[in-house]
Amino acid sequence: MKEPDDKLGEEVASDGTLGDVPTEEFRAALHRAADWVADYRERIEGLPVSPSTAPGDVAALLPASMPESPSPLSELFDELDRVILPHVVNWGHPSFLGYFGSTTTAPGVLGEIFAAALNVSAMTWRTSPAATELEGVVLEWMRRALGLPEAFTGVVYDTASVALLHALAAAREGLGLEVRRRGLAGRAELPVLRVYASEQAHSSVEKAAVTLGLGEENVRRVATDERFSMDVDALRAALDEDLRAGALPLAVVATAGTTSTAASDPVEEIGDLCRARGVWLHVDAAYGGALALLAEHAQVARALGAADSLVVNPHKWLFVPLDFSALYTRRPELLRQTFSLVPEYLRGDAERGEVNYMDYGVQLGRRFRALKAWAVFKTFGRAGLESRIREHLRLARHFARGVAGLEGFELAAPPEMAVVCFRALPRPGSDAAETDARSDELNRALVEAVNDTGRAYLTHTTLRGRVAARVAVGNVLTEGRHIDGLLALLREQAARLRRS
Amino acid sequence: MKEPDDKLGEEVASDGTLGDVPTEEFRAALHRAADWVADYRERIEGLPVSPSTAPGDVAALLPASMPESPSPLSELFDELDRVILPHVVNWGHPSFLGYFGSTTTAPGVLGEIFAAALNVSAMTWRTSPAATELEGVVLEWMRRALGLPEAFTGVVYDTASVALLHALAAAREGLGLEVRRRGLAGRAELPVLRVYASEQAHSSVEKAAVTLGLGEENVRRVATDERFSMDVDALRAALDEDLRAGALPLAVVATAGTTSTAASDPVEEIGDLCRARGVWLHVDAAYGGALALLAEHAQVARALGAADSLVVNPHKWLFVPLDFSALYTRRPELLRQTFSLVPEYLRGDAERGEVNYMDYGVQLGRRFRALKAWAVFKTFGRAGLESRIREHLRLARHFARGVAGLEGFELAAPPEMAVVCFRALPRPGSDAAETDARSDELNRALVEAVNDTGRAYLTHTTLRGRVAARVAVGNVLTEGRHIDGLLALLREQAARLRRS
Repeated sequence: MKEPDDKLGEEVASDGTLGDVPTEEFRAALHRAADWVADYRERIEGLPVSPSTAPGDVAALLPASMPESPSPLSELFDELDRVILPHVVNWGHPSFLGYFGSTTTAPGVLGEIFAAALNVSAMTWRTSPAATELEGVVLEWMRRALGLPEAFTGVVYDTASVALLHALAAAREGLGLEVRRRGLAGRAELPVLRVYASEQAHSSVEKAAVTLGLGEENVRRVATDERFSMDVDALRAALDEDLRAGALPLAVVATAGTTSTAASDPVEEIGDLCRARGVWLHVDAAYGGALALLAEHAQVARALGAADSLVVNPHKWLFVPLDFSALYTRRPELLRQTFSLVPEYLRGDAERGEVNYMDYGVQLGRRFRALKAWAVFKTFGRAGLESRIREHLRLARHFARGVAGLEGFELAAPPEMAVVCFRALPRPGSDAAETDARSDELNRALVEAVNDTGRAYLTHTTLRGRVAARVAVGNVLTEGRHIDGLLALLREQAARLRRS
Repeated sequence: MKEPDDKLGEEVASDGTLGDVPTEEFRAALHRAADWVADYRERIEGLPVSPSTAPGDVAALLPASMPESPSPLSELFDELDRVILPHVVNWGHPSFLGYFGSTTTAPGVLGEIFAAALNVSAMTWRTSPAATELEGVVLEWMRRALGLPEAFTGVVYDTASVALLHALAAAREGLGLEVRRRGLAGRAELPVLRVYASEQAHSSVEKAAVTLGLGEENVRRVATDERFSMDVDALRAALDEDLRAGALPLAVVATAGTTSTAASDPVEEIGDLCRARGVWLHVDAAYGGALALLAEHAQVARALGAADSLVVNPHKWLFVPLDFSALYTRRPELLRQTFSLVPEYLRGDAERGEVNYMDYGVQLGRRFRALKAWAVFKTFGRAGLESRIREHLRLARHFARGVAGLEGFELAAPPEMAVVCFRALPRPGSDAAETDARSDELNRALVEAVNDTGRAYLTHTTLRGRVAARVAVGNVLTEGRHIDGLLALLREQAARLRRS
């Protein structure tokens, strides 16, 4: 072996600028981080839920260019406390009731710490046997706990939007039109491909249709009934109209737990219709799927069972930190047919029992996400997940009753799952149209006013064209007193706004 | 306010099954995790790089269903040590030289811990002012450090494959064919859309083309020269042939640092051609972009500057843990035009200076990824990134010289960046075709044999149809003695295989 002809290795690395941070400095910083995390979790209730930050405030506290020289790990903590923490929305605050709540949990944080330390890429079984198999195990735990038939195979993606993109790509391939190989453009023989979803479905349907080259205008939004649930007759009419006109219905996206009101579509009935018309049924149960854990909500499991593909996000209501989205499908071979770069006849891996998750999607690099789900599911147990979900349902009912009983407030939609939409009413005495406009203005202002206090965090939504405020309970730290505090705060802020 | 009519809140939560794990248990577990992480990092060199796991081994150690009852956090550690650690490939091991090395670093791990504790979603500025602004800040730090023109705006995605998907979607929208609105199918007036990349480019080009509905066969693979660099004449011929035949060239994907040999295409020349033909140029610098930090590699920065879009992955060679992929583009408005659900005229956020990253892609939920990049860049400093990259270049040169000097070995490609492809030679005396087959077999077996020892981890690749072994240096823990150890191991294993 030749000798190296330039200086190398140890003597250079030992000056500390080539290797990692010295272990003892790292260990000390890890213990400081341990206390930082525990303290943050302990004192989060005393922090404002959201900050009073103006655009540019954070960037102004940081240099415009990357620091030239190294700095000790301790400076990270100083900057974290000075620059970052005062300007975050504290999603983990027990009075953060926006979106679908927060899924920060002790075991979830630990799972992320282990994943960061191992830093493997779960692209193939060989590069990460434990990551690949643990992913399969937690997906199977979830499948059984949710009561999904054995015919469903799971894959983990980052978000429900990406999971839906993959599901619709598989459905597209399943048409037998050689879309993978030949694409959609320049093929005069192809009809337009349509996707159907209720007017309450998530906007990720449009994003997926745009990405896949189907086109935004080929998403048909179907009317909903008074509970914001898809009108199956309207869906049938749309499908048949399109079929008559020569368009090709690709997929229906039904929802179990919409983003606005947590409404559910009549999935089983939609499933019958889809089977009759040969159309793929995807069920977006990103939020609502968690309810399938509860025996008293067996209809959710039945609904999920009707799907060709479905998505449940443990990062929405199963206490797993962002990001972790589980797609289940009866047709995993179509996902592989769409995304695998290894032809089926060369797949020795399959014979050896090796699952290579890179074959099921766009992403090659994949974090060890299974660890956080394993940590949460093991620590809370199935019974613990159930009792937490039940408590959230109960807290949401408590809020719904409370806000409906407040003078000058009304429910804006039937409360569903752990979501409650409501409105403050402006003073009476004006005509209806004017009241609507004043109501929109009042409720927009109310959400903003509540959030500005830093004592709670809500979001708003639009229902039948009218603004409503919205509360979702999903945080393990949220208790009855936070709900009662919010009711008092709403009464106080609405009164102030009506006076002004 | 009505009184709640069922039991609620505190008294139930205090039994410990509804809230989070008690803080003191969490704090103790965090400190145990701190030591676990520090110990792992300290003793990683003593662990086998890869395990001797058979498919199913990990799953067999875990229950088939989710545990019914809760368990203490301490059990996570037991299972981590018993079930997970013995079955991971230790990507952070200093002798892990597969793929592009590992980017586990002390500050990177700390950044992930902070992100897990905060668990915000960086979808809009309002939901996460600090996350959104820190993302902008680290992207700007990188832009300046890499010497990219001011005209480039960055966005963070998870992986280069997803970044490329978004870049090509923006290019597709930029054709002015209303693809977002109308899609590609059922439009007889549209030509096929073609994407061009060298035969050495990453397979994510095909995945993006499939996903976007362009079709795998509409990716044209262009020949490369003896350095595995794209032949621009061949590219020009392909473009012109397609234009004459009525196909529409959408984009060229050039590479700075290919996956197999870290070869670079003549990007500036390709850029001139793309401009002349009106074709989008995307540069895949996921790996090689990091070199633009070094003054002595100014040609990389010049190459990147020729792009319409480019991707650099800090999780490849900038010491940021998986996942973090930075896309830069001169046309961010096209990304927004493709993916934003808010029409431009309603974008009050822009006037207020609020960037909403959800408008730039498919994903809505986005982790606080900026923290780990900030932590690494601040702790190492620009000078520290530079010196680590230079050391990796030096270690790779040292390996290349060493393996070229080993009897019975040859280089399989010109060493580029920190990647070296090489071959062990079978015994002489057989004819060329037989030697090729025996060489392929030997080198495949050699990589497997080396990996099976647990003392190093390599990958293999195929160059001009022939198998080669491949080493990439990218880990801050790798030193000269690890390279020397690998050279000895290669000599030993090749001799053993030739004897058997």
